[in-house]
Amino acid sequence: MNSIRLPPPGALLTQAQFEQLDHEDALASARAAFSLPADTLYLDGNSLGALPRKVLESTRHALENDWGRGLIRSWNDAGWFDAPVRIGARISALVGAAPDEVIAADSTSINLFKALSCALHLRPDRSEVLVETGDFPTNTYIAAEVAARSGKRLVSANTQDLISRIDERVAVVLLTHVNYRTGFMHDMADITRKAHEVGALVVWDLCHTAGAMPCSLSAHQVDFAVGCGYKYLNGGPGAPAFIFAAREHHAAMAQPLAGWMGHRSPFAFASNYEPAEGMRRMLAGTPSILALQALEAALSAFDGIDLQALRDKSVALTELFIRLLDQELSGLGFDLLSPREARHRGSQVSLRHERADPIMQALISRGVIGDVRRPDILRFGFAPLYVRFMDVWNAIAVLRELMHDQSYLDPAHQQHRTVI
Amino acid sequence: MNSIRLPPPGALLTQAQFEQLDHEDALASARAAFSLPADTLYLDGNSLGALPRKVLESTRHALENDWGRGLIRSWNDAGWFDAPVRIGARISALVGAAPDEVIAADSTSINLFKALSCALHLRPDRSEVLVETGDFPTNTYIAAEVAARSGKRLVSANTQDLISRIDERVAVVLLTHVNYRTGFMHDMADITRKAHEVGALVVWDLCHTAGAMPCSLSAHQVDFAVGCGYKYLNGGPGAPAFIFAAREHHAAMAQPLAGWMGHRSPFAFASNYEPAEGMRRMLAGTPSILALQALEAALSAFDGIDLQALRDKSVALTELFIRLLDQELSGLGFDLLSPREARHRGSQVSLRHERADPIMQALISRGVIGDVRRPDILRFGFAPLYVRFMDVWNAIAVLRELMHDQSYLDPAHQQHRTVI
Repeated sequence: MNSIRLPPPGALLTQAQFEQLDHEDALASARAAFSLPADTLYLDGNSLGALPRKVLESTRHALENDWGRGLIRSWNDAGWFDAPVRIGARISALVGAAPDEVIAADSTSINLFKALSCALHLRPDRSEVLVETGDFPTNTYIAAEVAARSGKRLVSANTQDLISRIDERVAVVLLTHVNYRTGFMHDMADITRKAHEVGALVVWDLCHTAGAMPCSLSAHQVDFAVGCGYKYLNGGPGAPAFIFAAREHHAAMAQPLAGWMGHRSPFAFASNYEPAEGMRRMLAGTPSILALQALEAALSAFDGIDLQALRDKSVALTELFIRLLDQELSGLGFDLLSPREARHRGSQVSLRHERADPIMQALISRGVIGDVRRPDILRFGFAPLYVRFMDVWNAIAVLRELMHDQSYLDPAHQQHRTVI
Repeated sequence: MNSIRLPPPGALLTQAQFEQLDHEDALASARAAFSLPADTLYLDGNSLGALPRKVLESTRHALENDWGRGLIRSWNDAGWFDAPVRIGARISALVGAAPDEVIAADSTSINLFKALSCALHLRPDRSEVLVETGDFPTNTYIAAEVAARSGKRLVSANTQDLISRIDERVAVVLLTHVNYRTGFMHDMADITRKAHEVGALVVWDLCHTAGAMPCSLSAHQVDFAVGCGYKYLNGGPGAPAFIFAAREHHAAMAQPLAGWMGHRSPFAFASNYEPAEGMRRMLAGTPSILALQALEAALSAFDGIDLQALRDKSVALTELFIRLLDQELSGLGFDLLSPREARHRGSQVSLRHERADPIMQALISRGVIGDVRRPDILRFGFAPLYVRFMDVWNAIAVLRELMHDQSYLDPAHQQHRTVI
């Protein structure tokens, strides 16, 4: 039951309704924590989150005070050494894990390498790594490498065949919870349960989950998870990623990126590697402290935020975007690629259109920022902390206008290439 | 021949001479590029470089303009996508490589994993990975992991036995050019030549080299190298590291951290990994752009700096520190651990003393910052861009005073624990 009261299905949607929804929005004040350009309507927070104002002040302090004045002493005095653990604990609250089950460091790709290596180490007698066809490329690439180096077979299944493909051959199932192209959202509980029934482990990629909705890693008994810091967590371009491991795996887990920061006694400078207790053994080399501090400051935007209210708003935003699409843009060549049913949909809406690229370029030139996944997918992300209901209304209005006046065919708009 | 005229050996050193050396110092103006606390004498740039002033302004712009206003568009418009390549090219000039042979991303540990994996891939018929006993722990840990996963044997040799241990069994020799504990500097040309004579490859760790002296990777025909961004390159705590691969290896090199950023066409989102041409295939996941931008701004401190003049000053600083030690601190229990001969010494001086820990804590409490490697080593780093000759004089004066008044035994000074 969504706490946000939407106009009844089938009713004509009007601008006044969207204004009213913003007026009633319990999360409206959260937007004030972000610095957003006035002339821009930003629907790409699923690719790069907006700048939290607190990052500006916090980074200045980190540079001038912690680095500039504290120098080497800040490893202790400014809490640099514990930053991965401290920020991991902050993220754990957003993904439904215990504070000591998450650390922040490195990139999602690197953390996937660690998580998959650990999982295979824990299931030496199994022969397969199962991934989903069409998952984010890094996941498949990294899974292929880890599988090959462990003598395992990488197998993939289409979305609809996935759950039935999980059997006793499988060591680990690697899945992205919300698909980057379609916005399709898996049932984490069902798939994790099925994997465990046959003795397999799961690694969930939460790149499009964390910070957009509640997540219950512990309740679903998830084994490992990773996620990025720069989408809905708003940590900035290429922000440090996070990695989760269920506490039951901590003692036995081993990963090959055995850098000194993951050692039991990093300052003993021992010649043999002895992994630290718990999640610290997932650390490799020295992580970027500036990047971690920016992420930490960014996470304060979630202080006091109810994650179910966040999900309710996200569902309402995507729902209304789809309904307005039906109402305002039918017959213009758009096909909805994302699920209509909210329970299968993340916080984005993807559309297919054969002219996706010029249409997005024209949108961007009018200040409506989404992105394209070639050849024909337009993606619109709805970060519920800062996207307004009127942004949905206005985005559709701009899109409708440029489709009707065909200005997207104007070569002057073909300059923008959106990436990441 | 050092371009800096030092007092003749055996002459009594006086404060006036140090003042004169600062007065004549061709690099004296480089210090102005750094923000250093007035009450601190910083001799730990071999652990964490000081804050370049330009990082402050550049980071503010990167946050407010590139991220805050440009948002996702900055991947192209602000040059984020090319940052690892662009910054790598900047670093290549400091290590004697071609611009397209270096990229900046990830940590030194991660880059070591890539470099060693590539080297073993290129020497499949060899059985050993050779490291130096007492090298920086991460190097040995990572080498052990890469060796084990490739079915190779990790072997180690003492410094004096190293070169004779390089034989036809060895696939790759991994060495740190300047040792983190002793400051001992290997002869990169000799060892690389010996390795190549027997068909082995070399991976040099330049953590204590880059930014402190000239380096000639191409001239010595080095195969691979890595180094960190946060010591003499002054990129900030945990700054992105760099990795070098000789162009002749680019086409055949393969590394297992196959993230999407290293793909030939990252925005094609292809299901199979095809490595990019050249150094881009050394990229894994999305690197921290904020951290890269800070490193890029920091590197501007090297604009117009002659690297031989930098080395000459570094040698003069360490030479004078050792001579003052002999003159002022004899009989007080200090043993010189670093080589007396400049050609075997990096930009640091290490001393043994049985009370190393309380002595360093007392020094730090008086504003002289070095660090300790337990149990008994005091380290003093001389970053020639910003350390003055009078800093050497004053550091020894403070050290002499606290040894004579035994104030280092005062428990009030035992609060500082220096790390990293």
